[in-house]
Amino acid sequence: MDIKEQFIKYIHALQSTICTALEGIDGHAHFAEDRWERPEGGGGISRTISNGHVFEKGGVNTSVVHGILPLAMQQAFNVPESDFLACGLSLVMHPVNPYVPTVHANWRYFELYDKQGSRLDSWFGGGTDLTPYYIFEEDGRHFHNTLKNTMDVFDTSLYPKYKQQCDEYFVNKHRNNEARGIGGVFYDYLRPKDDADAAHLLGFQQANGNSFLSGYLPIVEKRKDYPYSVHEKEWQEIRRGRYVEFNLVHDRGTLFGLKTNGRIESILMSMPPRARWEYNYHPEPGTREAELLAYLHPRDWVS
Amino acid sequence: MDIKEQFIKYIHALQSTICTALEGIDGHAHFAEDRWERPEGGGGISRTISNGHVFEKGGVNTSVVHGILPLAMQQAFNVPESDFLACGLSLVMHPVNPYVPTVHANWRYFELYDKQGSRLDSWFGGGTDLTPYYIFEEDGRHFHNTLKNTMDVFDTSLYPKYKQQCDEYFVNKHRNNEARGIGGVFYDYLRPKDDADAAHLLGFQQANGNSFLSGYLPIVEKRKDYPYSVHEKEWQEIRRGRYVEFNLVHDRGTLFGLKTNGRIESILMSMPPRARWEYNYHPEPGTREAELLAYLHPRDWVS
Repeated sequence: MDIKEQFIKYIHALQSTICTALEGIDGHAHFAEDRWERPEGGGGISRTISNGHVFEKGGVNTSVVHGILPLAMQQAFNVPESDFLACGLSLVMHPVNPYVPTVHANWRYFELYDKQGSRLDSWFGGGTDLTPYYIFEEDGRHFHNTLKNTMDVFDTSLYPKYKQQCDEYFVNKHRNNEARGIGGVFYDYLRPKDDADAAHLLGFQQANGNSFLSGYLPIVEKRKDYPYSVHEKEWQEIRRGRYVEFNLVHDRGTLFGLKTNGRIESILMSMPPRARWEYNYHPEPGTREAELLAYLHPRDWVS
Repeated sequence: MDIKEQFIKYIHALQSTICTALEGIDGHAHFAEDRWERPEGGGGISRTISNGHVFEKGGVNTSVVHGILPLAMQQAFNVPESDFLACGLSLVMHPVNPYVPTVHANWRYFELYDKQGSRLDSWFGGGTDLTPYYIFEEDGRHFHNTLKNTMDVFDTSLYPKYKQQCDEYFVNKHRNNEARGIGGVFYDYLRPKDDADAAHLLGFQQANGNSFLSGYLPIVEKRKDYPYSVHEKEWQEIRRGRYVEFNLVHDRGTLFGLKTNGRIESILMSMPPRARWEYNYHPEPGTREAELLAYLHPRDWVS
């Protein structure tokens, strides 16, 4: 198997592993599978869950699409007319309980070919980030330390670099640079130098994918039965409004999908179940809600 | 008074008139006023309402801002470094009852000056459009006929032209060209040729502003006590998700505001109180919900 076949096989296996584990902790709802085809080539497997005991709405999607590189992507990558293959796993889970954070992760691989089918370029990308509604410092430390420990095996320079890239990316610039959540890691354009390096980077992707559950599930387990009232649920909905704003205004993948006639339901799978907007809403100083806001700027989670 | 002073005086008077009438029909909630200043020049008066008996969330805002034209607007207008003045009234009302449509309207005036303070350019723009959750053909006809009757006084070519521009603008292209609602009118760059023409266009703006209540209030009056259940409220929230998508992905005014460091709470005043996303949701064929979708494409409302 070449590298793309190995990665595709891996993301399908990971999709099953993650869905099974999330269903297990939910204890009620199951993922529904939806296979779709892309008219221009390839397709995907969406697995979505809703109205669970733990997860209000979420999806764990894989896709493998290929064909002629859409014009908008030609321009974005600054390449001539080419063929491409893009494959990846994307997930977003929005829990019921406001004390359980929303999580997002994505691991992807991209190949570009000339018109004779020779590979011109290829790269890996990915990341994982956490969006809490209430702050528990120990949860943030656990999440970030899991990412750091996973990456340190490859190179101790990676976590700090990719953590910073995540902090720079998931920002609502129009909200006075408020972060979407407490970050995680984000990386892109990891280009294999040769076959050995491609295998190395595939291993890096797998290590990150494999550690996803150990970063997130313990937090879900610890907070899912935390008592809450309508007040906390409303705050969760207001924060989910910020999630919507980030995804529709700033998220490159979402905007790209919307511009390139992507499959809309898969692109917007990340949207929260419900969001709320109130004019000029600010939580009272000294509350648990106001406390969150102080954490929505880059900070050290691992020292 | 020159034309800008007359228009500014008019929008402030109209703001009061509209708010008073909307409070009257609500019968419970009142608009709260929020005066804000723009550090670079000018400011605005936001008047917002929430948790009323009729209106769940809404705003009727005026602003008069001036100063150095932001770089993004220089590029958009393709002009050199200039000074500008922009003034207008913007309103969005989101009702409680899903049988009452959301309404949006905006009337604005723009002037550009060279560095010596001479006016280089000026134009009026505006529009009104309706976003129902359930279709009542008679309501759509009333709304569009009010717009047509108002514009026909000036020129019978205007309503068809501006109705078409509205149909072309308020479209969720990423949702297979589904319209945001049933449209209305939309116009921009109405440039006065001389002082007499400026007075004429000011009269046109005033006629449109003055007819707003007669287009919308009878519909509110007729539907506000229509019985509904949780099911209709959920449908309203799903449709409000589409409203959010349009405003954050396609609305030029919103995107411009976000890019030019506008006052975020005024820009996002238009957001609905609550929105909902469900994966791949489609109403059952033959239902009142499915019926709406057939109307979300350009159609004749006045013949």
